[in-house]
Amino acid sequence: MTGRLAVIGIGPGDHRYLTTEAEEALAAADALYGYGPYLARVPLRPSQAIHPSHNREESARARAALQHAVEGASVALVSGGDPGVFAMAAAVCEEIEVGPEAWRSLDVSMVPGLTAMLAVAARVGAPLGHDFCALSLSDNLKPWGLIERRLDAAASVGFVIALYNPISRARPTQLGIALERLRRHLPASTPVVFGRAIGRPDERVNVMTLETADPTAADMATLIIIGSPRTRVIARPGRLPLIYTPRAAQGISP
Amino acid sequence: MTGRLAVIGIGPGDHRYLTTEAEEALAAADALYGYGPYLARVPLRPSQAIHPSHNREESARARAALQHAVEGASVALVSGGDPGVFAMAAAVCEEIEVGPEAWRSLDVSMVPGLTAMLAVAARVGAPLGHDFCALSLSDNLKPWGLIERRLDAAASVGFVIALYNPISRARPTQLGIALERLRRHLPASTPVVFGRAIGRPDERVNVMTLETADPTAADMATLIIIGSPRTRVIARPGRLPLIYTPRAAQGISP
Repeated sequence: MTGRLAVIGIGPGDHRYLTTEAEEALAAADALYGYGPYLARVPLRPSQAIHPSHNREESARARAALQHAVEGASVALVSGGDPGVFAMAAAVCEEIEVGPEAWRSLDVSMVPGLTAMLAVAARVGAPLGHDFCALSLSDNLKPWGLIERRLDAAASVGFVIALYNPISRARPTQLGIALERLRRHLPASTPVVFGRAIGRPDERVNVMTLETADPTAADMATLIIIGSPRTRVIARPGRLPLIYTPRAAQGISP
Repeated sequence: MTGRLAVIGIGPGDHRYLTTEAEEALAAADALYGYGPYLARVPLRPSQAIHPSHNREESARARAALQHAVEGASVALVSGGDPGVFAMAAAVCEEIEVGPEAWRSLDVSMVPGLTAMLAVAARVGAPLGHDFCALSLSDNLKPWGLIERRLDAAASVGFVIALYNPISRARPTQLGIALERLRRHLPASTPVVFGRAIGRPDERVNVMTLETADPTAADMATLIIIGSPRTRVIARPGRLPLIYTPRAAQGISP
């Protein structure tokens, strides 16, 4: 069996965020699978077959890519950001675990990429400069009560919090509820960053505070960073402020 | 004033993990600052001046790079991994906040890179496929009691945990203490991954369990991922097992 599957992270979208490893893995594929808008950002050769699919079809997309690879093709499964962070790598592993025996013998590799929180953080300074957590706000696959327990735990011990999947048409209210919950733990002045489409023409980055953060300003592609009580804002003449979390946390509680 | 400072993430070390943006930013610099072994991995032009420094001198290195940029040079400050994750970006922000007025007017940009946890995770599957946190185990800059509270909080609500700076010559015992503490919360069978130098000749990745994890197998360049109670291991014939954390967490507590 010569087929193989590479699950490839293309970063936030700008081709300058692609790694050389990802470029080479994309170029080596016979067939590319992925969410349509991600495939549209990838440089293609005419001999490469593309198989776009819709956003919510991760499991079916993973199965189709695995099956195609088992048949002998070199298959690329294109993922936004990093495939290992709220993206396609876990979906592929889930299907391998329950799928045909042959899928467990397949040459499968994960090609890491820049996940959104790193790109958004870089735009504003270093908000993830101290301990942090990354949490998906979607309750499609976990109970909302668990999300609340995680928000409570993270805020009460001083983790900076990166929120993925903050909102969708089917879940319009959860970001507002989450921000309200975090206001129980964190000062009103805590910096909050909304970032989307970093490096693309429709890039948008807004810095607010926990008090002023407006959940209606987010869409499903927005990544949100909520500072800790230690996160700082440096005003700069003629430039956007720098937002960062100091490395040191001496003598604080938490 | 035409000087500028770019704080550039070069990823785990293999040049194939560099982004195009990082390559371009490195090429545009007149002078490069950084920890010696990181600078040694960067392609240089003969006209570029290099200013290597030691590992523990982050603040002095940040000040030197800022001062050189303010004098009109295009300066690159080279960081391993991602500069925003336990690396140079926060150190630069700290110095800008307390430094001369001119540093706050400077053109400063952060160029994101692949942080170690993404590269290690990709090697073994998708252990960061569900909510996770990233925690530095160094108590040089924060009290050990705070680290323990964060470990307790993270494990008790089901975050996967990525540990940076697990050990050093001055801190030989802390990883062992941390693993012992996590055993209070997590099953003995919880998968634990030790990874270092991903993509380099001295790459080493070991998969263990929380029961068998051996702290003496780590060095200061090791990144450790500790699964949640939901993290799974898929045995594969003739291949290394896949380690992943499923996207779903339905009906579990936590």
